[in-house]
Amino acid sequence: MTSQVAALALDIGGTKLAAGVVDSRGVVLVHARVPTPVTDDAGVVWAALVALVDSLLADPATGRFAAVGIGCGGPMVWPAGLVSPLNIPAWRGFPLLDLVRERYARTKPCVIHNDAVALAVAEHRWGAGRGADHVLGMVVSTGVGAGLVLGGHRVDGTSGNAGHIGHLIVDPQGPDCACGGRGCLESIARGPAIAAYAVERGWTGEPTAVAVATGAREGNLAAIAAFARAGRAVGVAVASAAALLDLDVVIIGGGIAETGDLLFEPLRAAFDEHAGFEFVRRCRIVAPELGPRAGLSGAAALAFDLVIPQH
Amino acid sequence: MTSQVAALALDIGGTKLAAGVVDSRGVVLVHARVPTPVTDDAGVVWAALVALVDSLLADPATGRFAAVGIGCGGPMVWPAGLVSPLNIPAWRGFPLLDLVRERYARTKPCVIHNDAVALAVAEHRWGAGRGADHVLGMVVSTGVGAGLVLGGHRVDGTSGNAGHIGHLIVDPQGPDCACGGRGCLESIARGPAIAAYAVERGWTGEPTAVAVATGAREGNLAAIAAFARAGRAVGVAVASAAALLDLDVVIIGGGIAETGDLLFEPLRAAFDEHAGFEFVRRCRIVAPELGPRAGLSGAAALAFDLVIPQH
Repeated sequence: MTSQVAALALDIGGTKLAAGVVDSRGVVLVHARVPTPVTDDAGVVWAALVALVDSLLADPATGRFAAVGIGCGGPMVWPAGLVSPLNIPAWRGFPLLDLVRERYARTKPCVIHNDAVALAVAEHRWGAGRGADHVLGMVVSTGVGAGLVLGGHRVDGTSGNAGHIGHLIVDPQGPDCACGGRGCLESIARGPAIAAYAVERGWTGEPTAVAVATGAREGNLAAIAAFARAGRAVGVAVASAAALLDLDVVIIGGGIAETGDLLFEPLRAAFDEHAGFEFVRRCRIVAPELGPRAGLSGAAALAFDLVIPQH
Repeated sequence: MTSQVAALALDIGGTKLAAGVVDSRGVVLVHARVPTPVTDDAGVVWAALVALVDSLLADPATGRFAAVGIGCGGPMVWPAGLVSPLNIPAWRGFPLLDLVRERYARTKPCVIHNDAVALAVAEHRWGAGRGADHVLGMVVSTGVGAGLVLGGHRVDGTSGNAGHIGHLIVDPQGPDCACGGRGCLESIARGPAIAAYAVERGWTGEPTAVAVATGAREGNLAAIAAFARAGRAVGVAVASAAALLDLDVVIIGGGIAETGDLLFEPLRAAFDEHAGFEFVRRCRIVAPELGPRAGLSGAAALAFDLVIPQH
């Protein structure tokens, strides 16, 4: 008799709150989601999450789970799990991990991490990083984040902040960054930066990365230039990370990456120009495999790291 | 009764070959060295090493050892230990690890790694990285290399090449690099690059980093500019690595770093400009502590990782 172990997975974002139960093959067995309440009241967001999870667990189709994993937008105090997600202004230093543990995981292992780290761990366990030991999993979207698996193990860093590839300096003379630094990848490749650069170059359409992507596909030169600049910046950062860490594979997802060649063509050109050593050039650059419920898979993968270590 | 475990340590460089026995506190108990033969004959270099080690082991003061560690200039095929040190042209694909194992370590663990990795591991175990879990140990010299300890463990990467911080891209428009890439830290901060840049700016003294350092201390503007450019490049790379890896401490040694403020002042200025997040700014930047026999300590630290893991 074999019985699959399962995890309760919570995926906390500025747009939606999602919950699910995921088995150890990465299959999302049941799931539910609600829009994240737009509010200044921390309790209102928490109540929405509780209602979501309670209803999921009340469903007879929802089986037992052995551990709880939470993926949440940063920053957070880690591993304590006091979260201050950029896109959930109601939560500042909110004790999410403790509250979830108390309500849903009293006697079970419970863990929280940055959502980009969760995605990287899931792609390593079940997706495009399967079988690889040295994996960088990136998200290029409204922000630029990543998680790292090296030697088969998640890398946390001193304070849980390892993976901030968005703050690799790709152009020392580049723009000021919201982090307080200058020339960071994120200041060039995040969606709003792509839109702002297109506008600077004469783009008169809607100032969003989505609109600029459509314009680029239609041949608008300002729009093409904005994606070329972002793609090259990502390619430079990937070449740097591959040289420093001797990676097997870099997985690049997120809304901006989903524009495909618009980003990946300049990205690969810059990587080819800057990656010299054979060991760097051999690093694979691929799309994620886990699809629309990757956030839940990510949260579950964090939980499985506690109960089913891979090494 | 306590008895210290000891390791046989071999430090293989283009200038000298060194051998020693090091105890598990990092103390070099006995040591000897010879100049590296200048030759095209692989066997001549090997014979010099054998003579050195045999005489060391014949000395009654040399006690027993439990493992053998070798630090050697790269590149090498790792972990197989086929070495092609840039500065030992006689050795190309030379099976150093197998030969050392056969002669000195038949029944004992025996390991080889890049000398920069060995230094980082030793500084983590016994030096400036003691007690820290996330350590980057750099050497800024004729080349720019490093080793990484993350979560208390040495990071090797897919092919043993993790730590190549010299090939972080610090200026996408920068000079061509010997690796085949462009704008790499090493192409700006290695000693010969500092000298070449000073000459470009009008330096008429001896075209070496040592002479340029003296010139800079005497107020020569071209010399000062060359060190400022190198220091800033190192600062940018350190800020990037600290953001990506959430490091406790970055240790910077090697001949160029030993010029002190000439390098460290622009380095810290660039770090302060580019490191935005609190978790990055809090990373300590320090000098190594292990001194002139650090190469032997490094080789020994690799060996102790096999017999006395730290975690």
